[in-house]
Amino acid sequence: MKTVSLELVEIHELAFSCLMQNGADKLNASALADTIMNAERDGSHSHGLFRLPAYVASLRSGKVNGKARPSASSLTPAVIRLHGDNGYAPMAHQIGIPELVKATKTTGIGVMAITHVHHMAALWPEVEAIAKHNLVGLACTPYMPAVAPAGAIKALFGTNPISFAWPRPGNTPVVFDMATAAMAMGEVQIAARDGHSVPLGTGLDADGQATTDPQKIAEGGVLLPFGGHKGSAIAMMVELLAAGLVNENFSFEAKEGDNGDGGPPRGGQFILALAPDIIAGAGWEDHCDRLFDRMSGMDGVRMPGDRRHKNRLSDAPRKINSDLVKKIRHLMA
Amino acid sequence: MKTVSLELVEIHELAFSCLMQNGADKLNASALADTIMNAERDGSHSHGLFRLPAYVASLRSGKVNGKARPSASSLTPAVIRLHGDNGYAPMAHQIGIPELVKATKTTGIGVMAITHVHHMAALWPEVEAIAKHNLVGLACTPYMPAVAPAGAIKALFGTNPISFAWPRPGNTPVVFDMATAAMAMGEVQIAARDGHSVPLGTGLDADGQATTDPQKIAEGGVLLPFGGHKGSAIAMMVELLAAGLVNENFSFEAKEGDNGDGGPPRGGQFILALAPDIIAGAGWEDHCDRLFDRMSGMDGVRMPGDRRHKNRLSDAPRKINSDLVKKIRHLMA
Repeated sequence: MKTVSLELVEIHELAFSCLMQNGADKLNASALADTIMNAERDGSHSHGLFRLPAYVASLRSGKVNGKARPSASSLTPAVIRLHGDNGYAPMAHQIGIPELVKATKTTGIGVMAITHVHHMAALWPEVEAIAKHNLVGLACTPYMPAVAPAGAIKALFGTNPISFAWPRPGNTPVVFDMATAAMAMGEVQIAARDGHSVPLGTGLDADGQATTDPQKIAEGGVLLPFGGHKGSAIAMMVELLAAGLVNENFSFEAKEGDNGDGGPPRGGQFILALAPDIIAGAGWEDHCDRLFDRMSGMDGVRMPGDRRHKNRLSDAPRKINSDLVKKIRHLMA
Repeated sequence: MKTVSLELVEIHELAFSCLMQNGADKLNASALADTIMNAERDGSHSHGLFRLPAYVASLRSGKVNGKARPSASSLTPAVIRLHGDNGYAPMAHQIGIPELVKATKTTGIGVMAITHVHHMAALWPEVEAIAKHNLVGLACTPYMPAVAPAGAIKALFGTNPISFAWPRPGNTPVVFDMATAAMAMGEVQIAARDGHSVPLGTGLDADGQATTDPQKIAEGGVLLPFGGHKGSAIAMMVELLAAGLVNENFSFEAKEGDNGDGGPPRGGQFILALAPDIIAGAGWEDHCDRLFDRMSGMDGVRMPGDRRHKNRLSDAPRKINSDLVKKIRHLMA
């Protein structure tokens, strides 16, 4: 793969300008460019510039509001409803996360039910933003049908990612962010683009047969949930929390209502926050460090989030796929 | 396997009497006998009478308080702390669940942090008790080290079950209750007892090698998390929510503090409740039925909890392992 080296500020500028030239206003373009730059910074290429053409497609088609002004309201002291004004999710998070943090600092637990957003980014930014305030964050969202429930050969669930951040004051949080599919569709798409195979169990082809060819999974095939019927149950839970409880589209409804422009469908998100200061009381940080010390002391164990946080420390330029950069510049012409 | 047929009331009476003769008082023996009978009713043999000898062992050793009087207090309108008085978890749930339901009906979301309980039952009873009130329930608990984190060959996590119930007014809830181990230790023990093998990926032997022999996993070996590093992340989340956040023992701490009598160690539990009436608003039942209809209409898909709920409908006697009944009667001699 041919790459070009771009400084983080250049990545931001590229994304920001491209979004501005395609219908976003400064606030929205800036929120989304932050998210894209931070993904590249952390080495999450599948959620970085790779997504920009799709973001642009939905701005151009008018499906997504590039000038969104999300609004938050409290249903109870612990429940916040956030209307995304049909914009991209990172804009909604900028408005809503501070409200969720404020509520959770008082009530010990808070939930934010987000509707009318288009979410195609990673889910760690929102839970890390919560963890910065020494709160625990958990987030999940459906998408469009891509994953077959355990036992089936047709898609019903989205790749339905779930993210979780545990705060470690004075240290990087422990964070995981994972598709409940055996592999994220972004990863499958990148494997297809780069000509790599994927492990057996990742998905089925159009005939319902197991395959290691990412192209066959991405086009006409279907992903499988991670971990068989247990992962399938977790994927179902994501549909129920982030669509049923939030009162937004299930993955299958999101697809039915989508215009097919290639960008993310309208959907919702479930974000939970918990205050260990209130629930556990004093001393929770040291207590949890005992678990983390045990884990990281075991041969072969990698702490969730560590690789991303290590990548983050480097301010060196990032290597970006050349064809992708060309494609993005073409969108700005 | 030789079995005897016992009516549900006989199962209850057997468990109740055995517990009463071994140090439990009426309230505690009754709560635990309900749980045991309901497990046999639903076909969950691994959480029924099979557990009774271990329950008795911990009453006899004095580790567990058979006369527990759990007490609940509100830390905030949405956070309940429940001290289990060192008794068995079902007794604590009888006291705490009504408080959690009451709080959640007002605040829309509630969490109960349970400490000082000994939990060796299934986790669906507590979430089904929540779902009866048209609330969503989610519960998890650590145990003793039995599961190797992804990449490791030594145990650190418990089998760390997680349960979830979604209410369906006028219908049985959709419920899953699963170990985050590839297989619950109770199932592995039953496979070992009955001479069955287990699937590859269930666990490792004492040398860290993959095996299909449940005996080698149960004695000196280790279970693996379901779904590789993703299931391992969920197992870690259970430790953090049900020990770190609750301020109780992690699995490894539970073992260090345990007297080795074979019964469940002292630990905590995290229970979350959510009110769709408040968060989603009117119409959520029909909306979610659309998802359930899609799922159950797919070839090969089984709705989580359905098999248990079908078993429940039968009032026929249940077949119980004869040796187990003999063993229990011996404990009453």
